[in-house]
Amino acid sequence: MKKLVVLGSTGSIGVSTLQIVEEFPDAYQIVALTAGANLDLLCTQARKFLPAVVSVINDQDAKSVRERLNDLNIEVCCGVEGMIQCATLAEADMVVAAVVGAAGLVPTMAALQAGKDIALANKETLVMAGDLIIEEAGLQGVNLLPVDSEHSAIFQALAGHRHGDIRRLILTASGGPFRELPAAEFSHITPTAALAHPNWSMGKKITIDSATLMNKGLEVIEAHWLFDVPAAQINVHIHPESIVHSMVEYVDGSVVAQLGVPDMKTPIAYALSWPQRLPLNQPGLDLCQIGKLTFSSPDLQRFPCLALAYQALESGGTLPAVMNAANEVAVAAFLNEQIPFSGIPELIERVMACHVPEAVTTVERVLQADRWARVRAREFIAGGLT
Amino acid sequence: MKKLVVLGSTGSIGVSTLQIVEEFPDAYQIVALTAGANLDLLCTQARKFLPAVVSVINDQDAKSVRERLNDLNIEVCCGVEGMIQCATLAEADMVVAAVVGAAGLVPTMAALQAGKDIALANKETLVMAGDLIIEEAGLQGVNLLPVDSEHSAIFQALAGHRHGDIRRLILTASGGPFRELPAAEFSHITPTAALAHPNWSMGKKITIDSATLMNKGLEVIEAHWLFDVPAAQINVHIHPESIVHSMVEYVDGSVVAQLGVPDMKTPIAYALSWPQRLPLNQPGLDLCQIGKLTFSSPDLQRFPCLALAYQALESGGTLPAVMNAANEVAVAAFLNEQIPFSGIPELIERVMACHVPEAVTTVERVLQADRWARVRAREFIAGGLT
Repeated sequence: MKKLVVLGSTGSIGVSTLQIVEEFPDAYQIVALTAGANLDLLCTQARKFLPAVVSVINDQDAKSVRERLNDLNIEVCCGVEGMIQCATLAEADMVVAAVVGAAGLVPTMAALQAGKDIALANKETLVMAGDLIIEEAGLQGVNLLPVDSEHSAIFQALAGHRHGDIRRLILTASGGPFRELPAAEFSHITPTAALAHPNWSMGKKITIDSATLMNKGLEVIEAHWLFDVPAAQINVHIHPESIVHSMVEYVDGSVVAQLGVPDMKTPIAYALSWPQRLPLNQPGLDLCQIGKLTFSSPDLQRFPCLALAYQALESGGTLPAVMNAANEVAVAAFLNEQIPFSGIPELIERVMACHVPEAVTTVERVLQADRWARVRAREFIAGGLT
Repeated sequence: MKKLVVLGSTGSIGVSTLQIVEEFPDAYQIVALTAGANLDLLCTQARKFLPAVVSVINDQDAKSVRERLNDLNIEVCCGVEGMIQCATLAEADMVVAAVVGAAGLVPTMAALQAGKDIALANKETLVMAGDLIIEEAGLQGVNLLPVDSEHSAIFQALAGHRHGDIRRLILTASGGPFRELPAAEFSHITPTAALAHPNWSMGKKITIDSATLMNKGLEVIEAHWLFDVPAAQINVHIHPESIVHSMVEYVDGSVVAQLGVPDMKTPIAYALSWPQRLPLNQPGLDLCQIGKLTFSSPDLQRFPCLALAYQALESGGTLPAVMNAANEVAVAAFLNEQIPFSGIPELIERVMACHVPEAVTTVERVLQADRWARVRAREFIAGGLT
């Protein structure tokens, strides 16, 4: 029986994680849940899985949840402290880090420091502080298991092979809804159009990141840290069908790939059950029915976010954290119709251009760079980015 | 320094093996070579690699080779005894079994009994006597490394994963040159048309087997023995580009595949170097340039050989050996224009229909079934198969 904490239980990854726990009640038990705005769903989840603790954003939400769950013996806490309390719970074996954005960093680091295995869905944690996270995971001897389908694919394609034999990693990208849209039309893209992802059902932030290819950029940085491979040996292929989830090419020309239907349950389940696999109750891959898989190179002219991510990774230090923070502000501004779609990379590039990277020595230093970038990005927006 | 014996050094696999040895002279040394009709090439290879022993088909060829190599200190022997002498050479570490057809069985078994690791390209060995071969490999504790690109792919896709988690193996097949030819035209196929394989450069026998899909049938049986997976869990996908070399689907829906350019050097090198990989000097896979990969189900109506192979595997005993022998006679008869292309499955089916399978208890019993099937097949041809 593996005891799980789910940070971000009401998001897409959190919900799928709980579906798996429901499907395998003898293998997993939920000991803590944390959520953001969706208190209704959190309370429903708490009634079903009976965790010892739940955590929400602030005191007011905590009070509300406490009242709604007052017939149950569940502790309700809140804020960053609440998230840390959940992430470090003594009885927990594994923490599923599924919070969206920079907010995932601090509780994930706390879980690592408490010696918990991590199922990592929050890519920003590694983008911002990969060096610190990988070092801490090594010190604690814990397993850091990727949940992103691309990184789960690479993890599976590396199993049983020698790290020294890697020639390159190939991350696949659906290319998003604007894969074939001419550059001239990018400034007219609406939030509604950008939120309509062809293959994956995901939260808003990651859906916009998929449309700009920043999601793939964040994944390149994540892959660098998870698999200890330099930027120059990480390539991206556009693969609209999202069936080949990613690949590893070895020095003899052999390429090992992991494929599957585009459903997050498989990579989540693999992170939970590794090194075993769960017999998931879902349709297998039928390549004969799918018929064809296509591949092309990404267009960095139309999707400059991907190039910005490579630039951030190669410069290193605090620059990836700055890029990530500027991107979060830019995506929110785009969703609020404050900036156009084409303004997202423009804003990120401007913020990055005025940052002088420093070495990442502490989480606090990273958070400082993150805050600086958010302020700077909001200033640019207020100044009238067009 | 790994010391290699190459059985069948002048064939397609043998020649590629020697190219790899030439590329990595510090890693491999050739200690014995055996060949069939191509004495010129054998002598050239012997002068270059200076093996201790070479073996040819008969006394006459041995005499000729002995004269041509009389300035070198190379022992020349012949016949099945000569092959066995090479396969069991005391100083050899690994035997590359690249003889074509049923002739590979006896020397491969001899190599196993002498405790040699085997790089197995001769699929007929497992088709005929898989049970005995796998048992002997287990008893001797030797490694049986697949050279066929499909089996090398599965071997690589299984590495690091649990055998109990396998849902099915998926072997890919190019579909051969007649993939889209209407059934009515099959009786008019000429040997020249059948020998023009779109993707792979191979010997005549295997090229015809690819055109009938019997090659894939033999590979299904080979996969059953190599990977201990029942026939019902081995599927075939037609994949004309021959880039995905084969796949393994696991119980969680995850599919691990191995891909590469269609070049036998990669799987041969992997068998030689496993568990390491050789940095081969050849172009990597460029999926963006290839653009698309397609998949479809095999048409068992037009390609009945594949169904016959499944039938042979499911019946078991001596039936696969009989099927294999009938196929060898049928392919030779087709190449000699004695029977039409559509006569190949017809002949095999007739021979199989009049065989009563027995358990495979000894190699001699298998060879007896093989001889019986050849006689019976020739009788059917003489009787005027149309």
